[in-house]
Amino acid sequence: MEFLTGVKEKKTLEISELHEKVKAGQQVKVNGAVHAVRDMGTVAFVILRKREGLLQCVYEKGTADFKLKDIREASTIEVEGVLTENDKAPGGIEILMKKLIILSLPEEEMLPLPVSKWKLTTSLEAKLNYRSISLRNIRERAKFRIQEGLTRAFRDFLYSQGFTEIHTPKIGAKGAEGGANIFKLEYFHRPAVLAQSPQFYKQMMVGVFDRVFETAPVFRAEKHNTKRHLNEYTSLDFEMGYISGFEDVMDMETGYLQYAMELLKKEYGKELEILNVILPNAERIPAVQFSEIKEKVCERYGHRMRNPFDLEPEEEQLISRYAKEEWGSDFVFVTHYPSKKRPFYAMDDPEDPRYTLSFDLLFGGMEITTGGQRIHNYKMLMDKISDRGMETDGMEQYLSTFKHGMPPHGGIGIGLERLTMKLIGEDNVRETTLFPRDLSRLEP
Amino acid sequence: MEFLTGVKEKKTLEISELHEKVKAGQQVKVNGAVHAVRDMGTVAFVILRKREGLLQCVYEKGTADFKLKDIREASTIEVEGVLTENDKAPGGIEILMKKLIILSLPEEEMLPLPVSKWKLTTSLEAKLNYRSISLRNIRERAKFRIQEGLTRAFRDFLYSQGFTEIHTPKIGAKGAEGGANIFKLEYFHRPAVLAQSPQFYKQMMVGVFDRVFETAPVFRAEKHNTKRHLNEYTSLDFEMGYISGFEDVMDMETGYLQYAMELLKKEYGKELEILNVILPNAERIPAVQFSEIKEKVCERYGHRMRNPFDLEPEEEQLISRYAKEEWGSDFVFVTHYPSKKRPFYAMDDPEDPRYTLSFDLLFGGMEITTGGQRIHNYKMLMDKISDRGMETDGMEQYLSTFKHGMPPHGGIGIGLERLTMKLIGEDNVRETTLFPRDLSRLEP
Repeated sequence: MEFLTGVKEKKTLEISELHEKVKAGQQVKVNGAVHAVRDMGTVAFVILRKREGLLQCVYEKGTADFKLKDIREASTIEVEGVLTENDKAPGGIEILMKKLIILSLPEEEMLPLPVSKWKLTTSLEAKLNYRSISLRNIRERAKFRIQEGLTRAFRDFLYSQGFTEIHTPKIGAKGAEGGANIFKLEYFHRPAVLAQSPQFYKQMMVGVFDRVFETAPVFRAEKHNTKRHLNEYTSLDFEMGYISGFEDVMDMETGYLQYAMELLKKEYGKELEILNVILPNAERIPAVQFSEIKEKVCERYGHRMRNPFDLEPEEEQLISRYAKEEWGSDFVFVTHYPSKKRPFYAMDDPEDPRYTLSFDLLFGGMEITTGGQRIHNYKMLMDKISDRGMETDGMEQYLSTFKHGMPPHGGIGIGLERLTMKLIGEDNVRETTLFPRDLSRLEP
Repeated sequence: MEFLTGVKEKKTLEISELHEKVKAGQQVKVNGAVHAVRDMGTVAFVILRKREGLLQCVYEKGTADFKLKDIREASTIEVEGVLTENDKAPGGIEILMKKLIILSLPEEEMLPLPVSKWKLTTSLEAKLNYRSISLRNIRERAKFRIQEGLTRAFRDFLYSQGFTEIHTPKIGAKGAEGGANIFKLEYFHRPAVLAQSPQFYKQMMVGVFDRVFETAPVFRAEKHNTKRHLNEYTSLDFEMGYISGFEDVMDMETGYLQYAMELLKKEYGKELEILNVILPNAERIPAVQFSEIKEKVCERYGHRMRNPFDLEPEEEQLISRYAKEEWGSDFVFVTHYPSKKRPFYAMDDPEDPRYTLSFDLLFGGMEITTGGQRIHNYKMLMDKISDRGMETDGMEQYLSTFKHGMPPHGGIGIGLERLTMKLIGEDNVRETTLFPRDLSRLEP
């Protein structure tokens, strides 16, 4: 019989604690995974991988009461030794080792990938096949720390703006966007689908909480095999009521980006440095109209417009280039997308119903957000559904919500992996996805 | 061409702003949904539902420049008027209305449920059928604010303890626990499953980040039709490396519960009051061994033990009753579950391998967490798999992680909806699930 009373102070120290709590010459205990062993003859360096970074431990024959060959790469160990200052060591400190406890040993000597190298130059394919190993590389790992910062900033900023977090179901009777891109499954002998987006649910919840958000997986059975598509990804979604126009939604997203850049600077500086990331400026983000900017970039860059109602990936790149040249901005909102390219719930522009009060946010040449104002009037919604010849099966509860009153509202969905990818300058979204799912990849 | 620069100050005020920024007699603008209209003859009360609560607006003929019948229940409106102090109004303030703007009108006069009543006494079935309406009730809505607090506390506490947040795939080739309770789907002509838990992934990521957590949906195709089972729920998962024993894991969970209770007290006091919740004490949580406590409760309460290797729901209740009587605790850890009742990755107790270094946390008579130490040694893991006659198909990457070194580690999974349910004293987990999925319910 015992009582648990909460987290105890640990005898082993983390890297930040070594800096804050310990002076040179003091005895300390640390643990970690053996990232690399570098035997220089008279002295050897044992590099420990810890959650806060790398820690150099020094092996000298007279000092340590164990043999260097007791330490094998990829084992996890606990070390007792003396903290020493050394400008050449990572972080300026190292541990002169005295005692060793082996916590665990690897079964195989050789790792499938050289993770202790600074840059893991292995192919993407190999990195993904050995995901739990490749991420042990310090640079690979740092990408997902930054991804954490982006998600954390999203929530913290929205909490501060009066949003409520919701958890909506991923198995349902019907997809939000319709179309063929839906994964189907059998649910106790009934047909069911995986959610393409939390769209219907977050709208319904605007009538309850005024402002809601969700950070959760979405599923798209798209047969695209490109560098920017995934079949499962994390969507940062919010939806807000009582808006005066869709500018309120863009302002909220701009506020998020500003908050996120500040949080990254403050709390993830180490990782930004590891990856050489220069944070983009989100202080003022230009907004340009779809048709207008299409014409402008075609003119400026001699691009031939093939379809006036859609943006090709190349046109997204040109628009971003234009925004960078004209306003020095890495971000640009493209507004008033054509109605026929948007889902039925998008609010048409009363001034020209061929277009919608919706937008995409482009970042460094790629769409990372789709958003806009939604229809909140029941009749208008039903008319649009019938104009499009759509079925309403499985949407009864969504539609009846509008029958019973809804405020003007709008929202967005951000693809977390794409945002991370553009922020750290990767060119394949799989590089910033922990365990990607695509046409050919279902494992690990 | 315009620039977005972030969130603008709004002209309409929230309830907290009315208290903090405005004095009695001042002119204000507010908006909200018309929750109820109470016509008293000479005067009428229009109750606005806002995200922070209810706000009373007063209609007097001479003062308002519109007609009372312009205001219909379930419409959303903007009101201009004078802030007045009134002890009888919710929060001690009310708005004497002058001007009205209708933001939206409902299509139907009558709501399907009487949501403006204090307690929504409708059947659970009706509440779930009209979920987007029933949650407009203040008490129903408050449950999910408390749920937000529990999730938020989980993340904030774990960030402070050096954990990294991860997003693991929900579609995969193989389930973590095995067994028949897996939803199957077709993934581009290949068989796939929905994740029963992030178990394999979070363990693999302990080798990368040392400490990880995820708050995400999990899927269980269980055919249980009980008050405590869902087929999709939100799991609060963490996994931590370099533990000295599974007590470290229980200490971390205890720390979370302590943090959560503090956060709820501090930030969700209004909702606790609305629901009359008395927060449990998590300062010290007793831990009792499975076999020992089973015998003790059978003896004390005259219960007949049917299966010495499993806990029946009734026995969970008796153990909680025992913990309350003996130690005054609403929580109790039950440790050393029988090995045959735990998945293959559970670490057996070296002192008696019929039992494991694992635990459940019971709260008010019900299991809300399963956790424990995991096997980190490759050989030990393979031996247990072969002893159980299991297949390793689809687990290659999981298993090979252990070949390449893993620290001693353990973790937990908490069922968010169950934790919420027990905290606020509900007796059906559907009451604290936004859109439940069960054997018969796939909509809304």
